[in-house]
Amino acid sequence: MKLDDCRVDGSKRFVLAKCPTSAKMDKSLKKEYLKKMAANTQLIAELQEKLYAEKREGVIIAIQAMDAGGKDSAIKHVLTGVNPQGISVANFKAPTKTELAHDYLWRVVQSLPERGMIGIFNRSHYEDVMVVRAKNMRGGYSMPDRFFKGSDKAFFDARYRQIRDFEAYLYENGYRMIKIFLNLSMEEQTKRMISRIDEPKKNWKFSLGDLDNRAIWDEYAQAHEKAIAATSTPEAPWYVIPADQKWFARWLISEAIVKVLKDCKPKFPTVSEEDLAAMLEAREKLVNGQI
Amino acid sequence: MKLDDCRVDGSKRFVLAKCPTSAKMDKSLKKEYLKKMAANTQLIAELQEKLYAEKREGVIIAIQAMDAGGKDSAIKHVLTGVNPQGISVANFKAPTKTELAHDYLWRVVQSLPERGMIGIFNRSHYEDVMVVRAKNMRGGYSMPDRFFKGSDKAFFDARYRQIRDFEAYLYENGYRMIKIFLNLSMEEQTKRMISRIDEPKKNWKFSLGDLDNRAIWDEYAQAHEKAIAATSTPEAPWYVIPADQKWFARWLISEAIVKVLKDCKPKFPTVSEEDLAAMLEAREKLVNGQI
Repeated sequence: MKLDDCRVDGSKRFVLAKCPTSAKMDKSLKKEYLKKMAANTQLIAELQEKLYAEKREGVIIAIQAMDAGGKDSAIKHVLTGVNPQGISVANFKAPTKTELAHDYLWRVVQSLPERGMIGIFNRSHYEDVMVVRAKNMRGGYSMPDRFFKGSDKAFFDARYRQIRDFEAYLYENGYRMIKIFLNLSMEEQTKRMISRIDEPKKNWKFSLGDLDNRAIWDEYAQAHEKAIAATSTPEAPWYVIPADQKWFARWLISEAIVKVLKDCKPKFPTVSEEDLAAMLEAREKLVNGQI
Repeated sequence: MKLDDCRVDGSKRFVLAKCPTSAKMDKSLKKEYLKKMAANTQLIAELQEKLYAEKREGVIIAIQAMDAGGKDSAIKHVLTGVNPQGISVANFKAPTKTELAHDYLWRVVQSLPERGMIGIFNRSHYEDVMVVRAKNMRGGYSMPDRFFKGSDKAFFDARYRQIRDFEAYLYENGYRMIKIFLNLSMEEQTKRMISRIDEPKKNWKFSLGDLDNRAIWDEYAQAHEKAIAATSTPEAPWYVIPADQKWFARWLISEAIVKVLKDCKPKFPTVSEEDLAAMLEAREKLVNGQI
């Protein structure tokens, strides 16, 4: 399985149920893929240094998943080894009262990385069409009644369009966005939840509230499918990553980041002939102790 | 030379001229210290994971230096290898018009890390008592005339007090702050500037404007000395790090970060007996496929 097999860019009809939750890679390959991921991390570090120096394009990576899907650990394993100076991580939790008093993209805009940076969104504006749709919480943001009179479909179709427009706007302003959906099976989630209970070091990650989400697994799946189908574009594609094998999922994520960074073709800025002449003049003075 | 030799906490009179710009470590030790720094980075990563899990204390590391002092490369070399999820880096450049329209700590407050994070300040509010004093730019922020009628000394003494108060406030609210001054010699700066001119990859880091700062090296030194002397406290100490040998300076910085993180004594949160009971009940249901 390769990155392209996970890519969803709107060119075909998207059916989540057809996407595997495991690539079923043989365990004997794990070592090899850990090495390949480490090599990708190194490559990301090198490309990011140029992106940062050039400051022309920004990269946004939004990660969505069910609970225990591996978002945090993917960030840790793929990006530890990259200069933190060029990375910002924004965590989007349940919106605060202040955030609910604004439009749903308001907090996202505030967390956008500067150009030259890689901005990781740990959850994102997709919460507002995923969990909000699965849990039927569309009334959360305080808005006039007229917005809620139409059907559920009409409400979320409007949001999908707004998100497509928002991401197209970002693309047209120097940002490339990729969206990662960690596609986890319920069975694997069970295992991971049990390990969070069994390992004291992981206890803090376990939330009893997460269990409620298992009862509406299908509602989530439908909301995920609809959102991904409606917001996949060539400029801001989704990658639906089989998440049950963490080591393989992380390699795929690293592949996606390498791809988007390569697409940016970052290079160290070159100076103009005029500036170079001034620099060489300064060099002379520095060598001679004149400045 | 050890970290303690660089620590300035207000217990003794501070004289910058007595602080070495080089620890004059034998080059043969470089390999060993690179290893020691890598081990510290690993330790920082482990302590940070707990700090992040616990979310009780925040750590702020402000880095100041003359141009080419090695701020960016120190951040890169010391902190690459730590999970970017727990680190935020704020760069304080020349203030914008909006920033100048506010008090000078306004932009700093906005860049404070959340508790649980390590916040790196690449430059900081110390610009407002260092470069601003060296270059006599105290009128930059738009404020009533009465604030500028007193002496230079009175003006900056007030700022030092405000900064001490600000940092004491942060300390009392769960933040530990350390302040790194990379103490560079003019000779070493000359070398580094020449290498920025000679290496095309580094050209973008060279700014002709930086040369002007060399003409007022002494004014900078005085401003640095006064600011460090007036704002060193046991709770928010300065570390005046000899910066001419990058590899040794970076090890010292990593030592300072390890020390402050150890002082936090972070540990993974433990759950209450009540929560643990609920978790074990949930475990049973997960195993039996009831949820």
